[in-house]
Amino acid sequence: MDAFQGPKRFEKSEDLIRSGEVDAVLIATPHYGHTTIGIDALQNGLHVLTEKPISVHKADCERLIAAQKGQTFAAMFNQRTDPHFQRIRRIVREGELGELKRMSWIVTNWFRTEAYYASGGWRATWKGEGGGVLLNQCPHNLDLLQWIVGMPSRVTAHCGFGVYHDIEVEDRVTAYFEFPNGATGVFVTTTGEAPGTDRLEIVGDRGKLVYESGRILFQRTEQSVTRVLENSPEAFASVDTWDCEIPVQGHGGQHLAIVQNFVDSILDGTELIAPAPEGIHSVELANSMLMSAWTNAPVDIPLDAKRYEALLQERIASSRFQKRAVKEAKVDMEKSFAR
Amino acid sequence: MDAFQGPKRFEKSEDLIRSGEVDAVLIATPHYGHTTIGIDALQNGLHVLTEKPISVHKADCERLIAAQKGQTFAAMFNQRTDPHFQRIRRIVREGELGELKRMSWIVTNWFRTEAYYASGGWRATWKGEGGGVLLNQCPHNLDLLQWIVGMPSRVTAHCGFGVYHDIEVEDRVTAYFEFPNGATGVFVTTTGEAPGTDRLEIVGDRGKLVYESGRILFQRTEQSVTRVLENSPEAFASVDTWDCEIPVQGHGGQHLAIVQNFVDSILDGTELIAPAPEGIHSVELANSMLMSAWTNAPVDIPLDAKRYEALLQERIASSRFQKRAVKEAKVDMEKSFAR
Repeated sequence: MDAFQGPKRFEKSEDLIRSGEVDAVLIATPHYGHTTIGIDALQNGLHVLTEKPISVHKADCERLIAAQKGQTFAAMFNQRTDPHFQRIRRIVREGELGELKRMSWIVTNWFRTEAYYASGGWRATWKGEGGGVLLNQCPHNLDLLQWIVGMPSRVTAHCGFGVYHDIEVEDRVTAYFEFPNGATGVFVTTTGEAPGTDRLEIVGDRGKLVYESGRILFQRTEQSVTRVLENSPEAFASVDTWDCEIPVQGHGGQHLAIVQNFVDSILDGTELIAPAPEGIHSVELANSMLMSAWTNAPVDIPLDAKRYEALLQERIASSRFQKRAVKEAKVDMEKSFAR
Repeated sequence: MDAFQGPKRFEKSEDLIRSGEVDAVLIATPHYGHTTIGIDALQNGLHVLTEKPISVHKADCERLIAAQKGQTFAAMFNQRTDPHFQRIRRIVREGELGELKRMSWIVTNWFRTEAYYASGGWRATWKGEGGGVLLNQCPHNLDLLQWIVGMPSRVTAHCGFGVYHDIEVEDRVTAYFEFPNGATGVFVTTTGEAPGTDRLEIVGDRGKLVYESGRILFQRTEQSVTRVLENSPEAFASVDTWDCEIPVQGHGGQHLAIVQNFVDSILDGTELIAPAPEGIHSVELANSMLMSAWTNAPVDIPLDAKRYEALLQERIASSRFQKRAVKEAKVDMEKSFAR
């Protein structure tokens, strides 16, 4: 019967990592563990696939990334496998949209109940989770954002802490971005809204792309908007467009594709879809928004990692938050996503 | 032939106002004239219909409104005659959406060329126009915004001055609102973008309403979202909705309807669609956004009218802006509106 026992179980990550029985680990613990367990695994020569966020704050990301020594090190940014986002990225990166002028992402379909937050003592605390919607739900969106249009150079954000839920961390965010080329952006999220919106809009000098309700609509202008603006003799000019719907089938391989890609990378050297070091960007964005809200000031990127860590430690130290009794919630992951 | 001469012409508003030949005036001059001519007309007992904005800044609005002595005094908020906005307002005001949680209005389809700004020496200067997109194009949107969801209590805004055009005033704005009940909002506008977006989203405790591309879509939740959030045993709950499209025909009588309503009010006492004193709200919103951008700080509403006036005067006094030679632009008003 021993042959049918299934895999061996370990109580502690240290024991698993040092067991000599595994070549690779997938880290799916509460967030702070991604750093500590990740460093331990990397330092012991294992390949690592970590859940998002790769760490809770930028300084921890840097420590974690520094521990990599040639192994395969990937992050669970499964939404990068979605052909919609791949297509949008290609349109932006290949210049079809022209130079970036403005973007907005309203992503408020991360509805979560009190039961969700009550289901784990670590959840939605500075000490246990290190943040709220920005650290738990939005790493996907923030990763895609930087993957598609690049990082902003300055962030101003307004965060509501425990607005909709009995928690101490943020459950409502409105952020304003300034990009290196002068373009602007807006990012709006919450876990307190239903049915919620998921609408990504990217505007360039050659038109506008909107992704909403599973459809990519690209209004491509026939000419550079800047050229029309500067040279048209008309006061009230319109710019001719092609209104294109870009057909995309399915939502890609998601988690399974990331795991397969991780294995393929280890075995065959296949290029990673989501190298873990790129995970620092979504953490930096989340941290910047929180720091802006805490300090009531814009935050420049690159973020001062040490200052952020100190501000987070202050919040952990001064937390007087008492979680209500942890209750087991019913979990139906089907409802975790809008689609 | 004298009977066919058409109306008498006056070179100066003072002469027209004192001619004894008119009971009412429609003021459609550059913006600062709305205040000075409006006060003169009201003080001389005439009925007044003024173009938007009713004044350039709040203190002028107060002076103008104080000059009314029982006459009919209306403002050209022609978009209030659009049955789409009337319907949306009714849904919000009658509580169908539940308590307001969040709104956003991305209205970037006010594309204007350099030729537009070069077509008048007064345009897009602090001294001649008193502002840019917020004072010229957006009064309609800002009026509708406050008409539908009420005034925010605090505004934080980022304005770009002459980003897309050779002008000294704002041609790009992103604003964040906080409402008295704690709801939040975003308002994004520019005259530098094409084809542009016009999307109004209003979220309440009973669902979400989106107005875009001429369609009103209302996702009504079957229950209070707050109640589901607080009481559901599920961690990942979804909230059942009715997805309703609200059919609306046409865009109403617009300018003509406002003029007719103005006449009906004078002759028959008909209730005004857009009483001019309500025009102070859109001016206060525009002023608050500019003041927030100038001071890099949130601005509380009610706005300090005297402080705003002083800041505007500073800009007028220190303006070194030299307009390029004023050229007559081709004007095709058909293209002024997205629809």
